[in-house]
Amino acid sequence: MPVPAPVLYPPFNIVRLSHVEYRVTDLAASRAFYVDTLGLQVTQEDGETIYLRALEERGHHCIVLRRADAASVGVLGLKLFDDPDLEKAEAFFRAKGLPVEWVARPFMGRVLRTCDPFGIPLEFYVRMDRLPPIHQTYALYKGVKPLRIDHFNMFSSDVDASVAFYNEIGFRVTEYTEDDQSGRLWAAWMHRKGGVHDVAFTNGTGPRLHHTAFWVPNPLAIIDLLDLMATTGYVANIERGPGRHGISNAFFLYIRDPDGHRIEIYCSDYQTVDPDLEPIRWSLTDPQRQTLWGAPAPRSWFEEGSLFEGATLVESGLKAQPIVAP
Amino acid sequence: MPVPAPVLYPPFNIVRLSHVEYRVTDLAASRAFYVDTLGLQVTQEDGETIYLRALEERGHHCIVLRRADAASVGVLGLKLFDDPDLEKAEAFFRAKGLPVEWVARPFMGRVLRTCDPFGIPLEFYVRMDRLPPIHQTYALYKGVKPLRIDHFNMFSSDVDASVAFYNEIGFRVTEYTEDDQSGRLWAAWMHRKGGVHDVAFTNGTGPRLHHTAFWVPNPLAIIDLLDLMATTGYVANIERGPGRHGISNAFFLYIRDPDGHRIEIYCSDYQTVDPDLEPIRWSLTDPQRQTLWGAPAPRSWFEEGSLFEGATLVESGLKAQPIVAP
Amino acid sequence: MPVPAPVLYPPFNIVRLSHVEYRVTDLAASRAFYVDTLGLQVTQEDGETIYLRALEERGHHCIVLRRADAASVGVLGLKLFDDPDLEKAEAFFRAKGLPVEWVARPFMGRVLRTCDPFGIPLEFYVRMDRLPPIHQTYALYKGVKPLRIDHFNMFSSDVDASVAFYNEIGFRVTEYTEDDQSGRLWAAWMHRKGGVHDVAFTNGTGPRLHHTAFWVPNPLAIIDLLDLMATTGYVANIERGPGRHGISNAFFLYIRDPDGHRIEIYCSDYQTVDPDLEPIRWSLTDPQRQTLWGAPAPRSWFEEGSLFEGATLVESGLKAQPIVAP
Amino acid sequence: MPVPAPVLYPPFNIVRLSHVEYRVTDLAASRAFYVDTLGLQVTQEDGETIYLRALEERGHHCIVLRRADAASVGVLGLKLFDDPDLEKAEAFFRAKGLPVEWVARPFMGRVLRTCDPFGIPLEFYVRMDRLPPIHQTYALYKGVKPLRIDHFNMFSSDVDASVAFYNEIGFRVTEYTEDDQSGRLWAAWMHRKGGVHDVAFTNGTGPRLHHTAFWVPNPLAIIDLLDLMATTGYVANIERGPGRHGISNAFFLYIRDPDGHRIEIYCSDYQTVDPDLEPIRWSLTDPQRQTLWGAPAPRSWFEEGSLFEGATLVESGLKAQPIVAP
Repeated sequence: MPVPAPVLYPPFNIVRLSHVEYRVTDLAASRAFYVDTLGLQVTQEDGETIYLRALEERGHHCIVLRRADAASVGVLGLKLFDDPDLEKAEAFFRAKGLPVEWVARPFMGRVLRTCDPFGIPLEFYVRMDRLPPIHQTYALYKGVKPLRIDHFNMFSSDVDASVAFYNEIGFRVTEYTEDDQSGRLWAAWMHRKGGVHDVAFTNGTGPRLHHTAFWVPNPLAIIDLLDLMATTGYVANIERGPGRHGISNAFFLYIRDPDGHRIEIYCSDYQTVDPDLEPIRWSLTDPQRQTLWGAPAPRSWFEEGSLFEGATLVESGLKAQPIVAP
Repeated sequence: MPVPAPVLYPPFNIVRLSHVEYRVTDLAASRAFYVDTLGLQVTQEDGETIYLRALEERGHHCIVLRRADAASVGVLGLKLFDDPDLEKAEAFFRAKGLPVEWVARPFMGRVLRTCDPFGIPLEFYVRMDRLPPIHQTYALYKGVKPLRIDHFNMFSSDVDASVAFYNEIGFRVTEYTEDDQSGRLWAAWMHRKGGVHDVAFTNGTGPRLHHTAFWVPNPLAIIDLLDLMATTGYVANIERGPGRHGISNAFFLYIRDPDGHRIEIYCSDYQTVDPDLEPIRWSLTDPQRQTLWGAPAPRSWFEEGSLFEGATLVESGLKAQPIVAP
Repeated sequence: MPVPAPVLYPPFNIVRLSHVEYRVTDLAASRAFYVDTLGLQVTQEDGETIYLRALEERGHHCIVLRRADAASVGVLGLKLFDDPDLEKAEAFFRAKGLPVEWVARPFMGRVLRTCDPFGIPLEFYVRMDRLPPIHQTYALYKGVKPLRIDHFNMFSSDVDASVAFYNEIGFRVTEYTEDDQSGRLWAAWMHRKGGVHDVAFTNGTGPRLHHTAFWVPNPLAIIDLLDLMATTGYVANIERGPGRHGISNAFFLYIRDPDGHRIEIYCSDYQTVDPDLEPIRWSLTDPQRQTLWGAPAPRSWFEEGSLFEGATLVESGLKAQPIVAP
Repeated sequence: MPVPAPVLYPPFNIVRLSHVEYRVTDLAASRAFYVDTLGLQVTQEDGETIYLRALEERGHHCIVLRRADAASVGVLGLKLFDDPDLEKAEAFFRAKGLPVEWVARPFMGRVLRTCDPFGIPLEFYVRMDRLPPIHQTYALYKGVKPLRIDHFNMFSSDVDASVAFYNEIGFRVTEYTEDDQSGRLWAAWMHRKGGVHDVAFTNGTGPRLHHTAFWVPNPLAIIDLLDLMATTGYVANIERGPGRHGISNAFFLYIRDPDGHRIEIYCSDYQTVDPDLEPIRWSLTDPQRQTLWGAPAPRSWFEEGSLFEGATLVESGLKAQPIVAP
């Protein structure tokens, strides 16, 4: 099995994925998409930046939209368990020879800025402003009724190496796709918070962000979003779905924001808190891993992704033929 | 407008579509599909024939599966309002020069066998054995929880002519697709029972049956069926969907039975009992009429259909380029 | 069986129930309830009157809210099939010695105003202004996503007599409750449009309107409304439900508007177009007819109703002990 | 605030609640309820005992049904993170003067048997037999489609003391009800696994088990179960619901097994992994904490519970008037 054994006592304690900064070229267009269409809640905004949270979140933000000349991903944020974990993380990344920096961020306590060995910009923190609960303020529910940020999915030019690194910092593999020929990992799903994943990696030119996912209450919320997008000028932003992945058993929909950043809307995860949870293996030759019901995905879904600020793209040496619709 | 004015006082009173006889090459395989997978209820069976009803139906059957050497459609059945309507129907079809015949059918009263001008075999009746209600016997609900037969959709080589004929016998157009170039009908949806359609016609080599549709309670029943079929050996029988048609607003799924007969599962119709209901026009150039959410249909969906017993195929002169997935 | 045989050829052709005029004491409060909370669409309004339609309706209105000093029901509206049906209806009601009058109504053609033998004010019409479809304008969907008006339910002091009269004008009984002791009808559900009912009658001091019902797409829309009402100041307006009636198999919710007019929100009806549909009998002693799942209803639900303008209340001689919550 | 600060570094690491042993008087009747009606999967059975798991669980069992002369609860099981946690737990309970014992259990590794200070029998373990995944074997899904065991809810005669003890071993309070008069806790919800609760305590004669809860995919699964139970002889086993709790935002249903053991079926939890999650306070005088939509609960729900083997009942000194249906 190409999946490393889980590290039960990692060097520092990551609670969960937390937030993403998207650089966007038209803030008003992004607001219409994320707020008016998806239903995320604005917690702060000015002419340069919009902070958003989902309906059951109490942290100040899960998405930061920042006006920029070109679309990209500024950083991925991860929440640590306790203050000493910040110093432990600093020491860990420094020892790896990776850049570390303490940065100031609005609405947050101390923030450690670094990157993973492949160039993905990361920031770690313990404290973010906490906001009053709104999950029972049902008058706010609209769009797809997004409840919480769920995971990041990234293209990696070396999935084995990505998995080894994230495994070392405590992420545990729940499912993975193996290339039967080479015995190498094609893709893997890894979690900290007890669901199928906080982060996932898929083979391809990387590092790039494939998508950020939001959790919604049930499939009907996704159908409602499809109907809404299809009749409000967003039909071309619907990329793939609805469908069910074999992997993770997720009922999914993939959409693109006005800059092409991909958002997954999904539900039907399962609980993974058991430390002895056995990873589920899928063969790269099994088409149902991608789509349980058999419908092909469009080529864009396999090929396109968002660039990370400051990262250098590397092509993967591992090739396979995806099953695509034109 | 290419759609004829509705005939408010037709020559005889059709209540609704009623049943279809499918000729099938492997009765056991068909039973596994319709009964064990879809959840239709057997009301009678022997080595040659299986009679089925859906869960809210009280008539004896909506599908007859008959063992045959080759797959085809034996007949489409329609229920008339009252006994005199049978004689009126006989006179009407005889006056058109179409063959009429009184035939004996198990579980049914008098049956008038005839065909439409294009060769589609039809049978009309007033009485069919009535069975006790089972719609609250919830232990019987499984598969996709089919509640009732909803409509027939047919390929026609001359949709204008098909619509003119069915309009004359009282079917009222609810929605239609027009070829802007020629001003001719590409497709039309026509009803008797107060929903979007009892019958529909689509341009193509005909007459052929495109599909028979069943009504289910909500989209989650369709998702359940997809999960079930995908994990019980029927993934290749899933042809298209789930999705929403622009036309009729239906949330749909298309599946193929073991002989290739196409079944639509759907919900989200609307009420059409008003005799002054205005038909909704769609342009052939509007892709959202087919699929509100934008996903293409596979080529098979546009091209394949079931043959009617005794009918002669005619190619349509009207051509268009469907938007297909490979 | 205490239910009369259906009249297949009634004296005039009623298509369906159509609209209700509610007299309300605070137009702004009613607007907040019907428009902002339930999600009905305003088609016309001024300081005295608000006209509303549901999302799949194309007739101009299904509810008229009219400002008044006291809450009551002005009239129940019914749509006829064709112009000659208006004269036939006039002759029928005149022959019964009931008052008939041709009245002018905004947004409607000729309107025949009359009442039933028990004093329920009725109006019949053929033409009402038709509006463009909005059922695919999904940005308008909110609240409980009401799709169409479905039925009226009325208290009658003599259900046998009410059923006999409405049967004579073509309504067909689908389900009924019989008092085993007396052999008399306790309640009955009667339809024209092919569902379980356009009108229903329940034993009690009458005539009073028990409720007007709206059809919604699925049970989750009802759960969404409950969450919304419970957190926007309407918790006391939730009277009963969610639950399922044995009778009609409806998944239901009963709420009260600011004047106490009762609205039912429901889904899970079944199709009743067959003229030989057998009515389903329920015994008055079977508690599951009211509530399949066993939860009792509050006393208010059994006792309270809206007064009809101009009608004189009569107490029923038929008594029974409802099963109530305090 | 009467809620203690969370213990971030507890004396041993509990992963989650795991299983319950119900002693039942008629094993066949219990099997019909848990397996044929709810849809739990049998993993082992003989004439004395039935082991069950839910559909996404890979541990061998979440319920053990054991034949006995009288109904009771044998033990509550909790899974620990790693082998050393077993010794740490042993030391902790021994230091508290509580009985500790290493016991043999089928399908499990080392098991530490003990009890909490109030007499609730507990067992801790790290290893239980792991079974192949069945969450995508959709042909197995029936009944309410139970996905996993979610929590235990217990009556406590001293909720403040119960919360203090479970807080000490690492459970974190997510929501609580306070008696404004006395400033004492009326009820509290506490978690380990990242949802609203693994365990909850409510004021009353204790210790008794109020209910064990199962997680299901969406509210429609609960409606399906209600329909099934109502028409298969289990209508009297439906105790309360469907409804939504203010506390935890759960969409719930409470049912009773043939021995009166109460099972909650629910969905609509939220994620609680943040260690700085602020507990939500509810006042005992706020009726929406119990039932967001306003419907009262039956008296049995407030008063009845299952006895724990070996525990001595103590009456609570804290009294309040519940809002009940008769």
